[in-house]
Amino acid sequence: MANNKNTAIVLVSGGMDSCITAGIAHLDGFELAFLHVNYGQRTEKRELESFKMIKKHYKVKQQLIVDITHLSQIGASCLTDMNINVPIADLNNSQIPISYVPFRNANILSIATSWAEAIDANHIFVGAVEEDSSGYPDCRRTFFDAFEELINKGTRPNTKIKILTPLINLSKKEIIKKGLRINAPLCLTWSCYKRNSYPCQECDSCALRERGFKEAGYKDPLLK
Amino acid sequence: MANNKNTAIVLVSGGMDSCITAGIAHLDGFELAFLHVNYGQRTEKRELESFKMIKKHYKVKQQLIVDITHLSQIGASCLTDMNINVPIADLNNSQIPISYVPFRNANILSIATSWAEAIDANHIFVGAVEEDSSGYPDCRRTFFDAFEELINKGTRPNTKIKILTPLINLSKKEIIKKGLRINAPLCLTWSCYKRNSYPCQECDSCALRERGFKEAGYKDPLLK
Repeated sequence: MANNKNTAIVLVSGGMDSCITAGIAHLDGFELAFLHVNYGQRTEKRELESFKMIKKHYKVKQQLIVDITHLSQIGASCLTDMNINVPIADLNNSQIPISYVPFRNANILSIATSWAEAIDANHIFVGAVEEDSSGYPDCRRTFFDAFEELINKGTRPNTKIKILTPLINLSKKEIIKKGLRINAPLCLTWSCYKRNSYPCQECDSCALRERGFKEAGYKDPLLK
Repeated sequence: MANNKNTAIVLVSGGMDSCITAGIAHLDGFELAFLHVNYGQRTEKRELESFKMIKKHYKVKQQLIVDITHLSQIGASCLTDMNINVPIADLNNSQIPISYVPFRNANILSIATSWAEAIDANHIFVGAVEEDSSGYPDCRRTFFDAFEELINKGTRPNTKIKILTPLINLSKKEIIKKGLRINAPLCLTWSCYKRNSYPCQECDSCALRERGFKEAGYKDPLLK
């Protein structure tokens, strides 16, 4: 249980994992500060709506919404480059998928760290999931460990920031069960890579979500 | 001497150090790609002019100019927060100065790495200087080593990127001598933290530049 005055930044995309991570940080007693990053992904409009609803749900006072255009300027991912189609899901593919946005999490964590240093937050919560994250290299705990080391090296001597990834070793099934157990508002979240209205139920992210709910034995509140 | 086909990204602010670093990468035989980041610093307009002139000088074909607003949204530095005045230089102060922009170089290097991965560049040149950099923690070689480790952990398995900091252990005097030796266009650079027209000759950056030229025994081409 953290000191009530401790501030934690939570990266909140609007997806299920970050919503549940926010719920965990809230239960841990942290004062929450929400960071949302618009990096030109197809479904940003819908994700931002989810972010705002989750923020309201947890009565979060501090927020930082950042537009970074460079990841879409750079492209090379189907999430940010409109010339590359979002493929049909293939959860058995062991390759890093085309939805991988080069080094995205380092960009986002750098922003989070700059903000943390400015507002004296000493924890950053990230809803990354190693097993279930389609093999993205910047979603593994070894990456977050290396980032903590980077923070140690690259900030003021008295700045101490821990990166917490409470879901990192869970499966989507376990995450959903945890989310339901702590009453995280899953009905407010958005996962689809492709659409803003109703989930496409075809992309990797929809497929992972569907499999998770199925294995957990619950119905996805987003689906009719 | 690099293979002619090897692409190197050079971080070019428009200042003297990055201009000389570009000159070194050029002499090393790399195909140059210039990255410039506008993070809301006071003198951006003038720095961008310098960037463009240096780019023209070295006939660079690939460029990425990125506006990141979040470092000025976050503030906490006199370079990005217009409510904090730029102090008069004090080169004997051993504290980290108020011009420190929290974790700035991690933000910039993350962008560079995303771009490098997208365009298959395997070198990133940074004009950071350890001794002479006013004590910024993210200008030390240990920081860049930690960043290389982060790149190893957070990018595709076949991505290999080295961060080169050829000026890191030089004094401003040595840097200026090197710049003159390799014919880097120092007359096109901009260093002042405060003004866009004529250098203020009061801020830390002007003071370091002035001392460097004096010790090197040359006249700064920017000063009348």
